[in-house]
Amino acid sequence: MRRSTATVSLSGDLISKMKACAEVGFDGIELFEPDLVVAEESPAEVRALADRLGLRLELYQPFRDFEGVAEADLEASLRRAAAKFALMNSLGIDTLLLCSNVATAVTDDRATAVRQLSRLADLAEKFDVRVAYEALAWGRYISDYRDAWEVVQAVDHPRLGICLDSFHILSRGHDPAAIEAIPAEKIFFVQLADAPAMSLDVLSWSRHFRLFPGEGAFDLPAFLAHVLRGGYDGPLSLEVFNDVFRRTDTVRTAAHSLRSLIWLEDATYGLLAGDVAQSRVSHLSAASEPTGVNFVEIRAESTDPVESTLLQLGFRFRGHHRSKPVRLWTQGAARVILNEQGSRDRAPWIAALGLDVPDPTRAVERARELMAPEVFRRNQAGEQPLEAVTAPDGSEIFLCPAPKDATPAWLVEFENGSEPTDDIELVTRVDHVNLVHPRSSFDEATLFYSGLLALDITTSTEVASPIGLVQSRVMSSRQNGVRLVLNVGPDAGGLAAGVLPQHVAFATTDVAALARQARERGLDPLPIPTNYYDDLAARFGLADEVLEGLRSLDLLYDRDEKGEFLHFYTRTIGSVFFEAVERRLSYDGFGAPNAPVRLAAQHRSTVAGRLR
Amino acid sequence: MRRSTATVSLSGDLISKMKACAEVGFDGIELFEPDLVVAEESPAEVRALADRLGLRLELYQPFRDFEGVAEADLEASLRRAAAKFALMNSLGIDTLLLCSNVATAVTDDRATAVRQLSRLADLAEKFDVRVAYEALAWGRYISDYRDAWEVVQAVDHPRLGICLDSFHILSRGHDPAAIEAIPAEKIFFVQLADAPAMSLDVLSWSRHFRLFPGEGAFDLPAFLAHVLRGGYDGPLSLEVFNDVFRRTDTVRTAAHSLRSLIWLEDATYGLLAGDVAQSRVSHLSAASEPTGVNFVEIRAESTDPVESTLLQLGFRFRGHHRSKPVRLWTQGAARVILNEQGSRDRAPWIAALGLDVPDPTRAVERARELMAPEVFRRNQAGEQPLEAVTAPDGSEIFLCPAPKDATPAWLVEFENGSEPTDDIELVTRVDHVNLVHPRSSFDEATLFYSGLLALDITTSTEVASPIGLVQSRVMSSRQNGVRLVLNVGPDAGGLAAGVLPQHVAFATTDVAALARQARERGLDPLPIPTNYYDDLAARFGLADEVLEGLRSLDLLYDRDEKGEFLHFYTRTIGSVFFEAVERRLSYDGFGAPNAPVRLAAQHRSTVAGRLR
Repeated sequence: MRRSTATVSLSGDLISKMKACAEVGFDGIELFEPDLVVAEESPAEVRALADRLGLRLELYQPFRDFEGVAEADLEASLRRAAAKFALMNSLGIDTLLLCSNVATAVTDDRATAVRQLSRLADLAEKFDVRVAYEALAWGRYISDYRDAWEVVQAVDHPRLGICLDSFHILSRGHDPAAIEAIPAEKIFFVQLADAPAMSLDVLSWSRHFRLFPGEGAFDLPAFLAHVLRGGYDGPLSLEVFNDVFRRTDTVRTAAHSLRSLIWLEDATYGLLAGDVAQSRVSHLSAASEPTGVNFVEIRAESTDPVESTLLQLGFRFRGHHRSKPVRLWTQGAARVILNEQGSRDRAPWIAALGLDVPDPTRAVERARELMAPEVFRRNQAGEQPLEAVTAPDGSEIFLCPAPKDATPAWLVEFENGSEPTDDIELVTRVDHVNLVHPRSSFDEATLFYSGLLALDITTSTEVASPIGLVQSRVMSSRQNGVRLVLNVGPDAGGLAAGVLPQHVAFATTDVAALARQARERGLDPLPIPTNYYDDLAARFGLADEVLEGLRSLDLLYDRDEKGEFLHFYTRTIGSVFFEAVERRLSYDGFGAPNAPVRLAAQHRSTVAGRLR
Repeated sequence: MRRSTATVSLSGDLISKMKACAEVGFDGIELFEPDLVVAEESPAEVRALADRLGLRLELYQPFRDFEGVAEADLEASLRRAAAKFALMNSLGIDTLLLCSNVATAVTDDRATAVRQLSRLADLAEKFDVRVAYEALAWGRYISDYRDAWEVVQAVDHPRLGICLDSFHILSRGHDPAAIEAIPAEKIFFVQLADAPAMSLDVLSWSRHFRLFPGEGAFDLPAFLAHVLRGGYDGPLSLEVFNDVFRRTDTVRTAAHSLRSLIWLEDATYGLLAGDVAQSRVSHLSAASEPTGVNFVEIRAESTDPVESTLLQLGFRFRGHHRSKPVRLWTQGAARVILNEQGSRDRAPWIAALGLDVPDPTRAVERARELMAPEVFRRNQAGEQPLEAVTAPDGSEIFLCPAPKDATPAWLVEFENGSEPTDDIELVTRVDHVNLVHPRSSFDEATLFYSGLLALDITTSTEVASPIGLVQSRVMSSRQNGVRLVLNVGPDAGGLAAGVLPQHVAFATTDVAALARQARERGLDPLPIPTNYYDDLAARFGLADEVLEGLRSLDLLYDRDEKGEFLHFYTRTIGSVFFEAVERRLSYDGFGAPNAPVRLAAQHRSTVAGRLR
């Protein structure tokens, strides 16, 4: 299938958009009329550039408010159409998108619409172009693709077909199954967009909140399967009106959108078993779902304060790497690599995550197929080769073989560590990792982790902080072996945007013991206010001694029908802090009610830090 | 009436919020529970601080999910309530807000709710506090204030009354008239919030988009009139959940919110004629609606390039001010003051607007009453005294007497200007001024201009630019003597946030003649692409010679049922450009369809400028 995107899905001017689409590998584009109207380049230049770039101009769009009008208005509309058909000839575009009438239609009479569209189709024939008629979800009389198809059938003209847009169909809850009954040659164009579930008027929802496939709530694979089963083999084109993508880097969004299309084809492939259409969509290496966090890498100009905190938390120094200037600390299956390379003037941040995957080779292959940027890594002889890709926030994601008997093969590459002690290791593994994204790459990150690694969004929430709302999305593997929490801070322009820290949460079987031990070793945890414990008492009716136990160790508490959650936080070092969590019974949340308490305490530390 | 705001309306920590509320002049606050829970200050400290600040703690809120529960759950809820009542005793707060049950109610049986609320009221009595019951718009069984009132009546307990929240009532379209029938002593609390008209689920609408009174679509004065006519004389409190205010400077939002309340009282005053309640609300000096733009002041380190452009547009140099280092240029009734004071390293920007008002003294008085910051201005003997206030974007707004026979009295203060020539002055006046706001002060600006100067929002629109959507709001005086266009650029974090320029549009009776004359004098206008004219031809069917006339002069064109609009733009100088507009017949728009063409052309200039 040819892959295309509408120019309106991207920021920038028309030429930048075209170059970006070609650069990332699209086969063609839909030319959104306003992008041409505001451009200084002539239609001939645009056509020549498209030729040079190998980019097909698949569609000219939109043409509005044509059918169902008073006869007196028809001639003016036909004149308008003729001008656009002539323009399409100059551009070398053969298909025009006609949206169902929103503004000027005066009659619901089908015969009128049919007669007027016949005139348009006749005119299109003279210019050797064709018209793809689309039912807008908010069309005045035609808002259902099945009605649009009835009209097109009645016109029965080779120059008139229909355009199917997943948003207009799925936003209204219309059943896409009837698409299969439409002859493939009468489907002139297919537009694909996802969207989040929202109770918003459909026009605003469409104009501001569309998403690329795989990022929203629509079942795009099922939709596309209907389209392909019917035999459609024209371009698959993304049309995504989204306020954020309109202002995000052009090439970045182009790559992001193409990734979504490749993902969608693959997700549809599985639904097309036994159908001839299956051969027409791309089929990727299967996702290798991660089973655990192999390691976390923290970088900084100086990682000393991180080391000190890890020591307080009971981690053991496992030595220096034999060829790379990095150091390893471990406890249970939790492994933290500290790296001071290429980090001048930088405070600690989470630079890389290693994830255990059942089949690293296949996982890397899938990542490549989904256009994930690969990380260059110099491997010495005798070292375990690890491959990595860059996530949208710049983190490096290493795809590692799951360690046998809890010891990764690469552990032997670290030398001269401390000897094991008799202390019980209270930390067992990494429970979750909390990453911070700019808003511009939040949806891209969702698709990255779901598409490459089959992580699912399990919860989305918003948390109040003293500087504004923090948006939070949890992505987990099925067995909860890997849990990533993606956060977006309050929009820039606010009080202190972009200063949210990241963190690593370690699982422990006895958080109170760990907290006590850490304090004995000098840890000064994030202080939790007394008011919080008074509220806990009111909410949960905890016994006084339990409450006092929590308070004395700055432990936070949550409970739901599945179990209990106890946790504490370290102070923030640079952009990073640590958390220790104890999950009791089947509690699988993250203590969301406690997040505002943490954010306020961190805010106090930041302000205090500034005043100091 | 005592004036109050909920702490959730503001950003920051509890102490900052309290100090800000006291600083700007609130009498009291509603303590939003999460603000206390995350605070390190004890209830005793909070109470003592409130005492010192003279701030009354009017309400503790919210208490949720109490009534209509299974009997087995009631005891736990009563224990939770007792803890909060005890806390309120420590804080010295006598009223608790109880929201109608959303999550745990299992029965719609009124008798159960009445019995359970009686238990709560009995308990409240023991703690000498009272409970204000509020129908949430999304309450499971109680979502209408009239139902809440029925329940309160049935409980018939002196410790149980109701809380009225304008959002919960008006968002559901419930008629607030029945409020007048509720005995004043049973209305324990009144919360006020406005909101924009939106088709969004009411919970999301409430949690993210509330506005201060006067900024949204609700008729708050009518609402408040019902409340006051019934005899209510407790606090009037703002409860505004808004994503932007949550991240805007605390004191700024506190002042903004108090202004909204003062405005609301005054707007309600007029509706209470003949009612005893009228004496309880503040009554401001009447708004003095502006009739025209007296002058525009542009500042920069060097205003030379502005001067050069004004000369090309046919403006005449009218001399230097006799005591201030500023220069004046005029044409018709359009007056531009150029000022190089205090502008080191700054490119040109619009620093001040003079507006003609029928009664400057009264206008200044009203501005003071609405807490507008006054601008200090040194006046020499013999100079016309002008007073000014600062708008939320920092612009200075001068309130000027309307000039007699088109010559402001201050004109004589400028000396040694050029002599008049025989040229016809094609510019007649300032048509509109286009200002750029950060998102954080956009709603504040709306209230500022509507509250102080009785400008109305006439249109709100969004315009696509290569760097994202630009939000645009037109505020006009009734006779269109003053038209301000307020713009917000794409959110920061995008490609090139905050770089939108401001502009002044001059009215002319012959834009083509003006454009020709300006070109002869060397003006190089903003170039408009040919594609635009091809699209114009298709849309409007203009004659070829008309089109060619437009194209040759880089004129833009719009037409609607009211008339025609022709205009052109200069290049941007610093942060400012100029526009010349000719309105034919009764056209009263701003050529919105042409705005994307302008934004794209300006984007090209910017990019070209960067590459140069």
